[in-house]
Amino acid sequence: MREALTMDLYELTMAYSYFKRGLNGPATFDYFVRAPTEHRRFLIFAGLETLLDYLENLRFEPEDLAYLESLGLFDREFLEYLRGFRFRGEVWAVPEGEVVFPGEPLVRVSASRIEAQLIETFLLNALNFETLIASKAARVLLAAGLEASVVDFSPRRDHGVDAALKVARASYLAGFAGTSNVAAGRAFGIPVVGTMAHAYVMSFPDELSAFRAFAEDHPNPTLLIDTYDVLEGARNALRVAQELRARGRQLFGVRIDSGDLAALSRKVRRLLDEAGFPEVKLIVSGDLDEYRIQAFREQGGVAWGYGVGTRLGVSWDLPALGGVYKLVEDAHGPRIKKSAGKLTLPARKQVWRLEEGEGFRDVIGLEGEDLPGRPLLRKVMVDGRRLEPPADLRALRERVRARIFALPEPLRVIRLEEAPAYPVGYSARLEALVRRL
Amino acid sequence: MREALTMDLYELTMAYSYFKRGLNGPATFDYFVRAPTEHRRFLIFAGLETLLDYLENLRFEPEDLAYLESLGLFDREFLEYLRGFRFRGEVWAVPEGEVVFPGEPLVRVSASRIEAQLIETFLLNALNFETLIASKAARVLLAAGLEASVVDFSPRRDHGVDAALKVARASYLAGFAGTSNVAAGRAFGIPVVGTMAHAYVMSFPDELSAFRAFAEDHPNPTLLIDTYDVLEGARNALRVAQELRARGRQLFGVRIDSGDLAALSRKVRRLLDEAGFPEVKLIVSGDLDEYRIQAFREQGGVAWGYGVGTRLGVSWDLPALGGVYKLVEDAHGPRIKKSAGKLTLPARKQVWRLEEGEGFRDVIGLEGEDLPGRPLLRKVMVDGRRLEPPADLRALRERVRARIFALPEPLRVIRLEEAPAYPVGYSARLEALVRRL
Repeated sequence: MREALTMDLYELTMAYSYFKRGLNGPATFDYFVRAPTEHRRFLIFAGLETLLDYLENLRFEPEDLAYLESLGLFDREFLEYLRGFRFRGEVWAVPEGEVVFPGEPLVRVSASRIEAQLIETFLLNALNFETLIASKAARVLLAAGLEASVVDFSPRRDHGVDAALKVARASYLAGFAGTSNVAAGRAFGIPVVGTMAHAYVMSFPDELSAFRAFAEDHPNPTLLIDTYDVLEGARNALRVAQELRARGRQLFGVRIDSGDLAALSRKVRRLLDEAGFPEVKLIVSGDLDEYRIQAFREQGGVAWGYGVGTRLGVSWDLPALGGVYKLVEDAHGPRIKKSAGKLTLPARKQVWRLEEGEGFRDVIGLEGEDLPGRPLLRKVMVDGRRLEPPADLRALRERVRARIFALPEPLRVIRLEEAPAYPVGYSARLEALVRRL
Repeated sequence: MREALTMDLYELTMAYSYFKRGLNGPATFDYFVRAPTEHRRFLIFAGLETLLDYLENLRFEPEDLAYLESLGLFDREFLEYLRGFRFRGEVWAVPEGEVVFPGEPLVRVSASRIEAQLIETFLLNALNFETLIASKAARVLLAAGLEASVVDFSPRRDHGVDAALKVARASYLAGFAGTSNVAAGRAFGIPVVGTMAHAYVMSFPDELSAFRAFAEDHPNPTLLIDTYDVLEGARNALRVAQELRARGRQLFGVRIDSGDLAALSRKVRRLLDEAGFPEVKLIVSGDLDEYRIQAFREQGGVAWGYGVGTRLGVSWDLPALGGVYKLVEDAHGPRIKKSAGKLTLPARKQVWRLEEGEGFRDVIGLEGEDLPGRPLLRKVMVDGRRLEPPADLRALRERVRARIFALPEPLRVIRLEEAPAYPVGYSARLEALVRRL
């Protein structure tokens, strides 16, 4: 994937003008998500590693430059500048996996104006999407509950192959147990899961033959029991479980992918338990999301695990995040922009998180202020080089998962009846600066 | 992007079992979209080129095999089989850009069972997404009208970098005029468009200086006039237009990206016309889609062109397409699957399109039937090699655009009040086969 040119043309036409006029002094841009954000009471920040990789490796290759020359928009001097282009800026950011809120600065880029501008499109593409998915995954986890194992089944409906990789990583970061996407397993070391489709069952003369064959060929078989009739499928699976037990082996689980999942899951669970197989796990799947998992549990559905696909991978109820990247300071000082209902907070800022009883409250203030609480933004890149290697994903996942299940009750609500209110305020000095500008 | 492993693990666990048992006889799978499909009265088929490229080039590289070995699920013999794996099947498909309907077979793959199975995830990922976007783009075009120029502004909200490329291509295929995505311009030869962001205007002491600078640096400037006040911005743009005219040049256009677009567009258009600049084009943007463009026009908004971003790139009102890939025939004959409200039509099929007055009607029948009308499925790949090079994208776009605007009136409705009905029926022989199975 040639990523350097993943940019809106206007990044280049603006850069060209800055270049011609020597308007390349220092500039600072903030990434933040516009508030309010429908259906989301909190966000899980993600995409930073994708961004930092891009910033470290951004180069215009000879073929990129040849293409840009062919557009007839840029002179030779500018193309030479691009040939030597490196991102040499400074980046502050909230760590991946942090709980954050719309309105808060999450990434702050300080660089020459051209460097800061040229990276805009890629930055937004990476942060908007990965934060979108990690935030959706967190809600799915909350609906499924602390005991459940939830996995990503989305690749067939994700928006391309890069999306499939990013969905697997962002949902794992939030606390999913694994993904069906083998490419993501290889790329990120995420556990991969999956057993059989209906086509497998249909490739044998009958269901029982298919189950026996699969159990013989695989060490920890999970059998898909809804190709024909779920209860009949469960009985066939039970026979295989008995045959395996006789040989000192074990059936790992059964999966139901269609029908009235809540009712069927109860019946199947009872069948398995009454036959003396409480250890056989029950996995449900089929167009699930946090709303449907919540309804499934309210209706008495029982499951050890959930496979979540389409509605996770495209974040069905909110398919894009309104993240923006705005100029907040340049050589002339803090910059502010106010238009129809939208305000961009000026200057270099920090976010302080104050623990308050069971919950917390954030205050956005100016960099350099001395406010109580834990500062969320940390310096992660200087002179275009990251200061630390990427965090270990497995260890990070454990912490993020624990953090999500420890969220205060009001943030954990799945069905938001009214517009979400975020526990975010401003420092007195920031408010004064906004008024002055 | 390593694509070979963009597959659900179960494709490999099923293939492994088939391999161990010599269950690798011929199999045929259909790709089709489940009906009904919310908010869509027709689809524009796309993604075939992505699929055919993948099928021609699918290889498991040594690092892929090392990773698969590390999973401990597969024996050496199977890994050796994968090392030599090539897709050698036959593919029939509807041409890209064709108007199609949910329920119709759009791609038919006949290959060994393992070959046909292993490609499932990638096939669905490519066809579902590109068809989703081309279909959304067609609706946006219909709302904008035949005279309007519509461009893709979505990269910052698309689901990753591959999605951004595919959105640009699929929307151009449907008849968009261009994209802001430079990478897509380079990859597919799509015209690239774009001029300036608010940050550019804010990088100058005042708006007029910014407009003058930009017009001096670029041959066909479009000025963004809503950074501060739209009407004031329009007056500043007019001054630049006058200055350019005095030097024998021309202002290409102005863009409004916020506020009450319909009202503002009328006022700005009048300002430009009354000042003697009817040739200056007016472009509107800002969270547009087919519903909002229709409302804009109903409210008397006037625009030469539209920039459409987020809601196109994620297909906001339908963020995923329910396309599936199902076994329809194997060595034992036609296969059928019926589950809760879902039917998979058995056997190798063809779709015939019958022109009827202003409209048309499709009939799904069995391959080999002699039915009136134009057959939609064509043989595009034999023994894993495509039969023809990809169609020229620019020429194809012209035809598809014309086809969309020539659709019969009932298919062109933007706001669908009721579940869509598709003009699709079945041949007598297919119906008889379904009853028999």
